[in-house]
Amino acid sequence: MAKKIELQTAKGVRDAGAEELIVRNKLISKMIKIFEKYGFDPLETPLIERLDVLNVKFGAGEDSDVAKEIFRFKDQGDRDLGLRFELTLSMCRHVAMNPTIKLPFKRYEIGRVYRDGPIKLGRTREFYQCDVDIVGSKRMLADAECIRLALDVFNALGLDAYIEVNNRKLLNGILEYAGVTENKRELTIITLDKLSKIGVQGVSDELKERGINITSIKKIIELLAVLKLEGNILDNIKELKKLISNDIGKEGIKEIEELFSYFTKKEKENIKFNSSLARGLSYYTGTVFEGFLRDSEITSSICGGGRYDEMIQMLMQSKDALPAVGISFGLVPIMEEIKRKQTDFKKTVTQIYVVAIGDTAVDAIKIASDIRKAGLNCEVDLMNRNISKNLKYANGKQIPFVLFVGEKELKSGKLKLRDMKSGKEKNIASKNLIKDVKSSMSN
Amino acid sequence: MAKKIELQTAKGVRDAGAEELIVRNKLISKMIKIFEKYGFDPLETPLIERLDVLNVKFGAGEDSDVAKEIFRFKDQGDRDLGLRFELTLSMCRHVAMNPTIKLPFKRYEIGRVYRDGPIKLGRTREFYQCDVDIVGSKRMLADAECIRLALDVFNALGLDAYIEVNNRKLLNGILEYAGVTENKRELTIITLDKLSKIGVQGVSDELKERGINITSIKKIIELLAVLKLEGNILDNIKELKKLISNDIGKEGIKEIEELFSYFTKKEKENIKFNSSLARGLSYYTGTVFEGFLRDSEITSSICGGGRYDEMIQMLMQSKDALPAVGISFGLVPIMEEIKRKQTDFKKTVTQIYVVAIGDTAVDAIKIASDIRKAGLNCEVDLMNRNISKNLKYANGKQIPFVLFVGEKELKSGKLKLRDMKSGKEKNIASKNLIKDVKSSMSN
Repeated sequence: MAKKIELQTAKGVRDAGAEELIVRNKLISKMIKIFEKYGFDPLETPLIERLDVLNVKFGAGEDSDVAKEIFRFKDQGDRDLGLRFELTLSMCRHVAMNPTIKLPFKRYEIGRVYRDGPIKLGRTREFYQCDVDIVGSKRMLADAECIRLALDVFNALGLDAYIEVNNRKLLNGILEYAGVTENKRELTIITLDKLSKIGVQGVSDELKERGINITSIKKIIELLAVLKLEGNILDNIKELKKLISNDIGKEGIKEIEELFSYFTKKEKENIKFNSSLARGLSYYTGTVFEGFLRDSEITSSICGGGRYDEMIQMLMQSKDALPAVGISFGLVPIMEEIKRKQTDFKKTVTQIYVVAIGDTAVDAIKIASDIRKAGLNCEVDLMNRNISKNLKYANGKQIPFVLFVGEKELKSGKLKLRDMKSGKEKNIASKNLIKDVKSSMSN
Repeated sequence: MAKKIELQTAKGVRDAGAEELIVRNKLISKMIKIFEKYGFDPLETPLIERLDVLNVKFGAGEDSDVAKEIFRFKDQGDRDLGLRFELTLSMCRHVAMNPTIKLPFKRYEIGRVYRDGPIKLGRTREFYQCDVDIVGSKRMLADAECIRLALDVFNALGLDAYIEVNNRKLLNGILEYAGVTENKRELTIITLDKLSKIGVQGVSDELKERGINITSIKKIIELLAVLKLEGNILDNIKELKKLISNDIGKEGIKEIEELFSYFTKKEKENIKFNSSLARGLSYYTGTVFEGFLRDSEITSSICGGGRYDEMIQMLMQSKDALPAVGISFGLVPIMEEIKRKQTDFKKTVTQIYVVAIGDTAVDAIKIASDIRKAGLNCEVDLMNRNISKNLKYANGKQIPFVLFVGEKELKSGKLKLRDMKSGKEKNIASKNLIKDVKSSMSN
């Protein structure tokens, strides 16, 4: 090797070390536990997909920025391939390849996806998606399950959060009522979605710019004012029923009523109706929802989803309807919130570090084995370093306890256990070692 | 979309469904538990690496088949990238990028790697590696930890397996003793490594073909005959000490003696000394080991590893030595063995399926919530199907229990629980529901 190579990561990707992974792995395993409690099964799809499969998504002309951001390559057989940019498409391919699949097909997948796009804070070229979907059921019961699952996830992760819910059919009904022509509805919805960010005046201005007529804007704003009863779904529905008489709107109202009938009073404390919520993407067809933290610096949503009854059928170019509803959790904002609230981060999984002093390695190993059998994570000194260097190592890695195994200690039947946080040392009897270590660690 | 796209996986990769993942995830989580008990911390590296980093590995001219098999591509900034083909290299890059990293650096990583090579049974283009390494310690204590960890993994997974151990320095010492010239040692070692496959005659013939002189071959064969005391390390060492007087061989013997001094009598029942084991790869510098199953159709190794004191330093092109020892587990053969022994595979995580009969959806949801709170995985009917279709669904997914929630049952305070395996149904009181369901499921 003539040239010295800089050993660096590729642009836009990074390593995750123990400090981050200890928190993240715990978070993920809690989420998986909830997913499985709801009877969602794991599915794992490859990171590599055929490029024509990835491009199916963009056949409808949508979201072509993402198409540009596919990492593309060829295999040795000259086949066009790409790295997946989302998990939904691979699930859809899986369903298409398994025509005898049992419906409803309920799967979760937590995996990395790739986008060759610009990098900014919190946005990398390799990131996790964490998806839960139900394919095959058109009933609001399925939508209710997804929302309930999200509430359980918040609870399991100790997040003070709530879900905002709306329905795209209702939104379309509102726009029909307001006289917005069909070709302008998608743009109007995108503007309405920004209500919490830009306020009523902002929405009104943007709609004007987009060429929506004044009467329509006035009608929308008035309706939004009437609906400013956030959280009280029954009152909202009463108002909406008075105003909306078109078919699509009435269907939306009916779906929302049915959906909310599946929640308990306690659940409804964390479920708000928000008639302006749209969730940008145009593939949603019914229920849409988005989760937010209360009292947090993190204002972006921590999960979101909804019903997409036409997408899978379109991707599969199939004649048969395949309704679906799903939810996706944002690992990045959830990790941010956990980091914000947690003050103490472990740098290692190790709970106790066993140091042999003098020629006691064999005894130290024996003791470490016993400690491991008792269920604790235990490291032994593998460098044969002196006491002060070992303490420096344990300190640097923030290992909570160090146990010294010296010849003198072995003879006297008492081993020295050092609490690295307090610096206090105590002698514990070899025969009570495990019990004493465990009790010291739980204090 | 004019053309109908076949939704297929890319060549050489595949989806993993619930049946496989339920087994694999359990397997992986047991392995991780052991890794962490030994104080190994998680590290996660990106799947995308800079191509020049991936090529560093091949600077020494080794293993160029793998180099050809890198999936290569460019990002939008025209940078040359590739998919990782192993985990060690990324760990090495991580160490190189973190000069203040605490030594010993002990990490595990379980992740997918990619090779654009020919596909055969058990060989795909996307597969898992499962690596545990210790960087920074040159002591045999570290080697002993890796071997002991493997024994603990076998135990945790219920595998009847053992480890064969050898030392490359000893092998070189044997070849020096036999008069094999230095330029022919690598090839001789590769032939010796095949001893268990091709037998003494096969080894002898192949060495002749490779131009090793008859005297050398005779000496090697004689020595192997003396060492046919597999498993009894002390007798072997005694014989070797009589014969081997060169420095490298003596060093190897000393290392093996020290290594074995760190094992208990019980551990040694599953650790065999095998003087012909070499583990093909030339980067090993000392201890080498490989794990095998007893009484199994699977004859390939299930784990392997060893000491590679020069590789990281070479990859980093550094002046400082960075000794390392590690072990890699083969998920594929381990999964094969588990599948061979296990007869009953779950098709779903769901343990109980709650079916509303008539207008009882709200009650069914309430009951499902209670069952989930009690820690069971519970699905509710989301399709509003009739009893017979629901039973067919539960049967197809092999959900063990179905609970019927009908109006009549709700009124009587008794719900019907069907054991899908036996077909037996019993009525259980609503107030004792959780207790009765749990006790039925544990029977």
